[in-house]
Amino acid sequence: MDFNKILAEIAEETKYLQGKGKVANYIPALAQVDGNQFGMALLTADGELFEYGDSAVNFSLQSVSKVLTLTIAFREIGTVVWERVGREPSGNPFNSLIQLEKEKGIPRNPFINAGALVISDILCSALENPKEYLLDFVQKRAQNPLIKYDEVVAISEKEHGYLNVALANYMKSFGNIHNTPEQILDLYFNQCSLSMNCNDLVRVFSFIANRGFDSNNKERILSRSHSKRLSSLMLTCGMYDESGDFAFRVGMSGKSGVGGGIVATIPGKLTMAVWSPELNSFGNSLRGVMALELFTTKTGMSIF
Amino acid sequence: MDFNKILAEIAEETKYLQGKGKVANYIPALAQVDGNQFGMALLTADGELFEYGDSAVNFSLQSVSKVLTLTIAFREIGTVVWERVGREPSGNPFNSLIQLEKEKGIPRNPFINAGALVISDILCSALENPKEYLLDFVQKRAQNPLIKYDEVVAISEKEHGYLNVALANYMKSFGNIHNTPEQILDLYFNQCSLSMNCNDLVRVFSFIANRGFDSNNKERILSRSHSKRLSSLMLTCGMYDESGDFAFRVGMSGKSGVGGGIVATIPGKLTMAVWSPELNSFGNSLRGVMALELFTTKTGMSIF
Amino acid sequence: MDFNKILAEIAEETKYLQGKGKVANYIPALAQVDGNQFGMALLTADGELFEYGDSAVNFSLQSVSKVLTLTIAFREIGTVVWERVGREPSGNPFNSLIQLEKEKGIPRNPFINAGALVISDILCSALENPKEYLLDFVQKRAQNPLIKYDEVVAISEKEHGYLNVALANYMKSFGNIHNTPEQILDLYFNQCSLSMNCNDLVRVFSFIANRGFDSNNKERILSRSHSKRLSSLMLTCGMYDESGDFAFRVGMSGKSGVGGGIVATIPGKLTMAVWSPELNSFGNSLRGVMALELFTTKTGMSIF
Amino acid sequence: MDFNKILAEIAEETKYLQGKGKVANYIPALAQVDGNQFGMALLTADGELFEYGDSAVNFSLQSVSKVLTLTIAFREIGTVVWERVGREPSGNPFNSLIQLEKEKGIPRNPFINAGALVISDILCSALENPKEYLLDFVQKRAQNPLIKYDEVVAISEKEHGYLNVALANYMKSFGNIHNTPEQILDLYFNQCSLSMNCNDLVRVFSFIANRGFDSNNKERILSRSHSKRLSSLMLTCGMYDESGDFAFRVGMSGKSGVGGGIVATIPGKLTMAVWSPELNSFGNSLRGVMALELFTTKTGMSIF
Repeated sequence: MDFNKILAEIAEETKYLQGKGKVANYIPALAQVDGNQFGMALLTADGELFEYGDSAVNFSLQSVSKVLTLTIAFREIGTVVWERVGREPSGNPFNSLIQLEKEKGIPRNPFINAGALVISDILCSALENPKEYLLDFVQKRAQNPLIKYDEVVAISEKEHGYLNVALANYMKSFGNIHNTPEQILDLYFNQCSLSMNCNDLVRVFSFIANRGFDSNNKERILSRSHSKRLSSLMLTCGMYDESGDFAFRVGMSGKSGVGGGIVATIPGKLTMAVWSPELNSFGNSLRGVMALELFTTKTGMSIF
Repeated sequence: MDFNKILAEIAEETKYLQGKGKVANYIPALAQVDGNQFGMALLTADGELFEYGDSAVNFSLQSVSKVLTLTIAFREIGTVVWERVGREPSGNPFNSLIQLEKEKGIPRNPFINAGALVISDILCSALENPKEYLLDFVQKRAQNPLIKYDEVVAISEKEHGYLNVALANYMKSFGNIHNTPEQILDLYFNQCSLSMNCNDLVRVFSFIANRGFDSNNKERILSRSHSKRLSSLMLTCGMYDESGDFAFRVGMSGKSGVGGGIVATIPGKLTMAVWSPELNSFGNSLRGVMALELFTTKTGMSIF
Repeated sequence: MDFNKILAEIAEETKYLQGKGKVANYIPALAQVDGNQFGMALLTADGELFEYGDSAVNFSLQSVSKVLTLTIAFREIGTVVWERVGREPSGNPFNSLIQLEKEKGIPRNPFINAGALVISDILCSALENPKEYLLDFVQKRAQNPLIKYDEVVAISEKEHGYLNVALANYMKSFGNIHNTPEQILDLYFNQCSLSMNCNDLVRVFSFIANRGFDSNNKERILSRSHSKRLSSLMLTCGMYDESGDFAFRVGMSGKSGVGGGIVATIPGKLTMAVWSPELNSFGNSLRGVMALELFTTKTGMSIF
Repeated sequence: MDFNKILAEIAEETKYLQGKGKVANYIPALAQVDGNQFGMALLTADGELFEYGDSAVNFSLQSVSKVLTLTIAFREIGTVVWERVGREPSGNPFNSLIQLEKEKGIPRNPFINAGALVISDILCSALENPKEYLLDFVQKRAQNPLIKYDEVVAISEKEHGYLNVALANYMKSFGNIHNTPEQILDLYFNQCSLSMNCNDLVRVFSFIANRGFDSNNKERILSRSHSKRLSSLMLTCGMYDESGDFAFRVGMSGKSGVGGGIVATIPGKLTMAVWSPELNSFGNSLRGVMALELFTTKTGMSIF
């Protein structure tokens, strides 16, 4: 398949969406991003890379990072993770407290904020220096030592993160946070601030398409079975309250962030990263979702 | 792969669950079913059939039928379906009215009861004789003219169906039911009463694994794209509030019913049907779910 | 106190609200009512009557009738009523199903629709002919044999009453309705259709201000203690989701209906009826609520 | 009326409840309180005081203090208070976040925790030294300079107050908290720790029964109209999720705290304080509620 041609077509056919979404503005560091940027990268299972547009421009990873911390938690403590967080779609906007109240402090899944904070708590307990560990992990996967936490973003998140402080304290009141809220929020705000580009992203996440194996570093990250499960979780819960619709229209396992990035995968075949900062009402990249939908429509490739 | 051996192993390794679930008891006709029965059937994309145990014993289709009515609705009115019902997991037990209230009479997806009632309403509007049409459709797919509605079950459902009467009237108060509640409930209670066995089931549903094409009758049922979407919907919403967990553990597109049947598919590869009447707390067949989990674990085959 | 003067002032000072509310329009029979009508009646504990405006024009009692059926239920089965319905404000709009779901079919109080349907069920079980009984009860209290059910309204309610059909069936699914939904809805739609005027209303309800005693007919309706409790229930739950605000601003025990009528009482002192068909966003008479607030402000009289 | 005799009867007739409730145990300082204590005080509008049992033993005021901070907020900024907090019963257990989410950070009333935190925020903005101001206010009303904040309790609350930290931060995320969460929580935890006895309590709260006037100090605290409203708010919202039931059974304006104290009033007539540390499932003093119910039953006195 001529992926270069397909990516170019997708770019052309999604251009009309530019200006129809809204750049995340809850922190100044994100609000200042130029909404007109658009990049894509595609890495096949064979290791071939295709790029388009702003694929080398760094952006804020935000919630996409939740897949990485979950992966590490998985490696560190295994299935015990599921005693602390569920595996079901939330059925509510991504910051909902209703569900937490009903289910006594157990978040529905690790990709809503509450769930990611529990994962952060797990890493704080399991690792000596979780911030350093995470950065090493990402740099190694991407084979790019220049990837950094963006201090400005991290501080800015901290200053406006009242909701996450509320979530952490609320779960602590149920006993589902073991470290101090300050500790786990520090890791959380930093992981969200990870700054990288589409090319980095497809490399970092390629182990999922390769069923748990990082072929660049010749290292098994997750067992086949765990990798399948991670992929499943991305499909059912990765796109906030638009997950069902994304699975329906796109049919790839994906994870989005409010920085406008989306990573998506078809196990055994390929990994894609799309970046466009303008978001739809669900908090997912407006143009990014459409780009991925066009991709599976044009290629006939999908999970299903 | 030696599917006969694998099915036998699965039967053996799940036997311990017998007696640990609960046969549906909200209507006498279901409560009387012997909970110790267990059957499996597997149909490959090439048309090879494998069976085990009570694979030729008829049971009540119940909610598994929702996939069939949705398929017909899809064929009849196309994507307009999505103006009447959503495509997101419900995040609430399957009969929840909370979501309906919040979303003004639009059910979250066609596989919760409320959504299936809307689909029933669509069929009542689109077809002259929907009950007859559905039965023909099923008999033809299964190539089995003996498949019937079970009158006893249908009447029994009607007599105990206050919740479904409530749902239908509630949605009607929002304007999302066009026919009378009586009409759509009649179709609904009948579709649930469809009586067939695992061998029928894998034939009826094989068009999904074949990406929309019924190869027995050489007839296209859904376009490739629609078939992909149906499969995606089964994965994200097919197992009530256990859908995420099922996707996670099993990794197949599935649909269950309180009669104890589950149909599951890996597009391009195979269709499976499992039947065991004892249910878990989510209303899904306890032994059936485990059987499918063992199947994907043993074979390494799954969607992901 | 010169009540005639005070009523005239109130009429003058609330005139500006005319046209700012909305006549109930969910059934044609109510939608056709002229929204510019305004009537008041005041009956002191000594039996003195004061009237203003359209105090002799009949209107549809609607939810005001819920106080009467509760009174009869109280007389018939006593405190057993509270095993079937709660005594707490609902904290949700008056037709909410969320609470019913959470509390397994037990409505929060007898003044929300669900609660009134349970009371209707109690009357259907306790009385041979509840419709006749209720009409007799009302006619006797008002000493007005011309009071009637309005057939047109009752039929119209029935034709548009899908939500109430849903509520009745939903509670029946929990076992909290003993008769058929049809029976209890027939009584319910009829009680709502009771047609009378402000002068009737103050007479009918004066037994509450007289602590349970109907002095016109020299008959005890409720014990002092039960009357106190009824009055308390009206204060905390009588004005739908505006109850707290009504208690706060007005400080009288009141009950409203979507026909635009409100009955309000200060135990030991007086009974008032106000009628103005235009409703506020809570479904209470816009001008009526303000009239009662002005009354307690001008007179310094209130419960508190 | 022989109030001494009535109080003694009440004590006798409620003794059987001793041991049937549960002393608050979420902080050690409260858990250590001897649950067998029981005190009452009654102050008539004429200034006559009646006492019974442990009426001079100090206990932790807890949520009873919310009436005092609301009174001060009322005096300081008047009706603007109602732009920040509602006046409706919550219809949910007292710490519920669901309602806050639905109503975008505006608590339903000032007597649930979230509402009290908003009032705390108002005092932090309006007063130079709110902690000192509140203590002066209480000491002056009680004419008892020995009333103090209990440091041990306040610190203990702080150490276990994750839920309140969550609430404060959550409302801050909606913009409904203007000071830092730390500031308002410091005031809040201190107000809850106020330590006094039943005799103090009836004096402190007597201004409500006197329609806003503190007759001991010859000082108007609230206007008649504001006092009426405060009393109404206590009736509809003062007893957490048992408010409707308390109004129904007791018929007094009351406010309870998890320290086991309840203050209750019949405007124009009297103020009562009851203390018994064992709580019922709603968090109200089990024996205290029954004592007040017996009081209104025996005396025939109530608001209604």
